[in-house]
Amino acid sequence: MIKVVLDCYGGDYSPRANLEGGVNALNADGNLALVLTGNKEEINNILSEFTFDKSRIEIIDAKDVISCDDMPTEAIRKKSDSSMVKAYEALNNGADALVSIGSTGALLAGSVLKVGRIRGVSRPALVPTLPTVTGGEVVLLDAGANADCKPQNLFHFALMGSVYATEVLNIKNPRVALLSNGTEDTKGNELTKQVHTALKNCPTINFVGNVEGREILSGNYDVVVTDGFSGNIALKSMEGIAGAVFTTLKASVAQSFKSKIGALLMKKSLKQVKDTLDYNKKGGAVFLGVRKVVVKSHGAAKASAITAAILQAKKACENNIIDQIKSKIEQTPAPDFGENS
Amino acid sequence: MIKVVLDCYGGDYSPRANLEGGVNALNADGNLALVLTGNKEEINNILSEFTFDKSRIEIIDAKDVISCDDMPTEAIRKKSDSSMVKAYEALNNGADALVSIGSTGALLAGSVLKVGRIRGVSRPALVPTLPTVTGGEVVLLDAGANADCKPQNLFHFALMGSVYATEVLNIKNPRVALLSNGTEDTKGNELTKQVHTALKNCPTINFVGNVEGREILSGNYDVVVTDGFSGNIALKSMEGIAGAVFTTLKASVAQSFKSKIGALLMKKSLKQVKDTLDYNKKGGAVFLGVRKVVVKSHGAAKASAITAAILQAKKACENNIIDQIKSKIEQTPAPDFGENS
Repeated sequence: MIKVVLDCYGGDYSPRANLEGGVNALNADGNLALVLTGNKEEINNILSEFTFDKSRIEIIDAKDVISCDDMPTEAIRKKSDSSMVKAYEALNNGADALVSIGSTGALLAGSVLKVGRIRGVSRPALVPTLPTVTGGEVVLLDAGANADCKPQNLFHFALMGSVYATEVLNIKNPRVALLSNGTEDTKGNELTKQVHTALKNCPTINFVGNVEGREILSGNYDVVVTDGFSGNIALKSMEGIAGAVFTTLKASVAQSFKSKIGALLMKKSLKQVKDTLDYNKKGGAVFLGVRKVVVKSHGAAKASAITAAILQAKKACENNIIDQIKSKIEQTPAPDFGENS
Repeated sequence: MIKVVLDCYGGDYSPRANLEGGVNALNADGNLALVLTGNKEEINNILSEFTFDKSRIEIIDAKDVISCDDMPTEAIRKKSDSSMVKAYEALNNGADALVSIGSTGALLAGSVLKVGRIRGVSRPALVPTLPTVTGGEVVLLDAGANADCKPQNLFHFALMGSVYATEVLNIKNPRVALLSNGTEDTKGNELTKQVHTALKNCPTINFVGNVEGREILSGNYDVVVTDGFSGNIALKSMEGIAGAVFTTLKASVAQSFKSKIGALLMKKSLKQVKDTLDYNKKGGAVFLGVRKVVVKSHGAAKASAITAAILQAKKACENNIIDQIKSKIEQTPAPDFGENS
C-alpha cells in the first residue's frame, strides 16, 4: 500500500478539484491510501458527495493555507496550521509521497526544510515531464527550483533525471542532453561548458551533447539538463507560444466564414493538439533530490490532472526512485569543478 | 542616398535569393544604393536576368565564403577574400549598413573586429524583432551574441533596445521588461536582480518590471532584455513549439477525413498564422552597439526576407540609430555594479 499525502488547498479550484482528483485516484488504484490535509469540515462535506473506500482515507485538519503571495520560507516556518505544512508533517510521519497544487516556492522550501536532500545531492530540481512530437516524453530539469546553479548541480540533475526517466517513464538508457545556445560542443556559457565536459566523461550517463531550445520536444532526447533560470524560461516560452498560436489562429478564423466552418470540422484535431501539448493535464512536476517523493501540480489543475499527479507519485514510490537516485549519486561522484563547485 | 552592403553568399539559397532580394529592394526604394560582395562572375550572370537601376549597384569580387563550420574569429581574420570580409571592408569604406545571411558568429566577430563598438557600449547584442499577438512588434536582446553577461551589459541592452524600438519600430516611450523566472520584483537570478534595481532607478528607461517567457509576445512589452544565453533559449524554444504545434496538427489532421476537409477550408488562416509568427520573413536581427548598422538575416532566408532586411537596415540608418545609441549611452551612465561590472 502506497500512502500519498494530498494537500487539498492552494489551487484555483481547491479543495473540490483536489478531492475529486483524490477520490478518482483511490477508486482507480486499490493499492493507494490517501492522507488529506486541510479544513476537515469542508473536506468532509465535499467527500460526502463521492463513493470510495473510506478505509483508505485519513483526514488531518488544517485551517490555514499558504498562498502564492506568502514569502515561501517564512510561510513554511510560521504557518504551522497550513494544509501544506500539515502535509509535510504527515509525509514525515509514515507516508511515501506528497502532492500539492499550492505555492511552488513554499513547496520547494518545505521539501528542503522539512524533508531534506538525499545525501550527496547538491540541490533538488523541479522536474516537469513534457510531451514530445513523436508521442513520447522528455523531462526537463531544473525547470525553476534554482535560479543560480553551479556545475555540480547540473551534473546531479543529469544523474537524477536519468533515474527518473528510467524508473518512472520506462525509458531504457535515456538520452541526456544539455540545453544550450547551439548544438556544437564548443557552444554554451561558462556554466554549461564545464558541465558538458563532465557529462561527456561520465560513464553512467548516456550523454548525447547539447540541445537547442527548439529541439527539446523533438523526441530525440529523454532528459534535458539546465539551470533553473534557463529551464523556467524555456518552459514558459514554450507555453507562451503554444498559446500565441491558438490565439492568433482564433483571431484569423473569426475573420472568415470559410475558416470558421473549417475550424468547426477540425475541432477534434485542434483539441487533440492542445491536449497533447498541455503537459499540466498529465501530471505534475516532481522535486527530485529530496528524501521523499514530492509532486507539484499546476495551480489551475482540475481533478483529472490531480489524479494523474497522485498516480505519478505512487509510481515513483513503487519504483524506489529515492533509493535509486541515492545509489546513482554514490556511484557517480561529480568531478572537481574547482572554485566553481 | 543610403548605401547598404549586401554579402551575397553564406545562406541556403545564396547567391540567387540574396540578389533577387537586393534587386527588389533597389526597385522599391530609389534612395537606396547597394554594394554586392561575392563571386563577381556568378553575380553578374544572375543579375542579367533582372531589370534595375544599374547606377545604384556596385560589385566587389570575392571568391571565398565563410561557412558556419568555420571558427568565426579565425575566419574573419584569415579569409580575407570572403564575401563577408569584403563586405566589412566596403562598410568601412563609405557604406552605411551591412546585410548578411551568413554565419552569425563570424558576422558578430566581424562587427566587433572590423567595425568596433560604439564608445561606451560594453557589449553589442543580437536583436531580432518578433511579432506580438496583438499585431505589434517586440525586440528581444540579447538573443545570442553573448553567452555570459554582466549587469552592465544588460543595462546597455535596455538603453539600445529602447532607442531601436523608438527610431525603427516607431514606438513612443517603449516599455522595457527584464526576462525572468517570475514577474515579482524579487524573482530572478543574481544577474537579473542587480539589473532590475538599476533599471528601476533609471529615469530614461520606461522599465515595467520582469516578464516571464510566456508573455514575451503578449503585446504588453516593446523591449525584452536578457543575457544572450537565456535570450537564445527563449527564442529557439518559441520556434520549436510553433513548429511542434503545426507538426502535431498535421499528424492529427491526417487521421481524419473530416479534419482534412476542415484543414483545407482553414488553409488560408493556418498560413496566415504561420506567416505572422515567422519573424524571419520580415527582416533580420540587427547587431546593436557597433558603429555601423549590421543586420543578420536567417540562413534560409528567401528573397523577400532579404529585401525586408535591406530596407530595415536602411531605415535604421535614416533614423541615425548609431548616433542615438551613442547619445543615450552617454546620457545614461550605468551604475556601479561593483566587482560584477
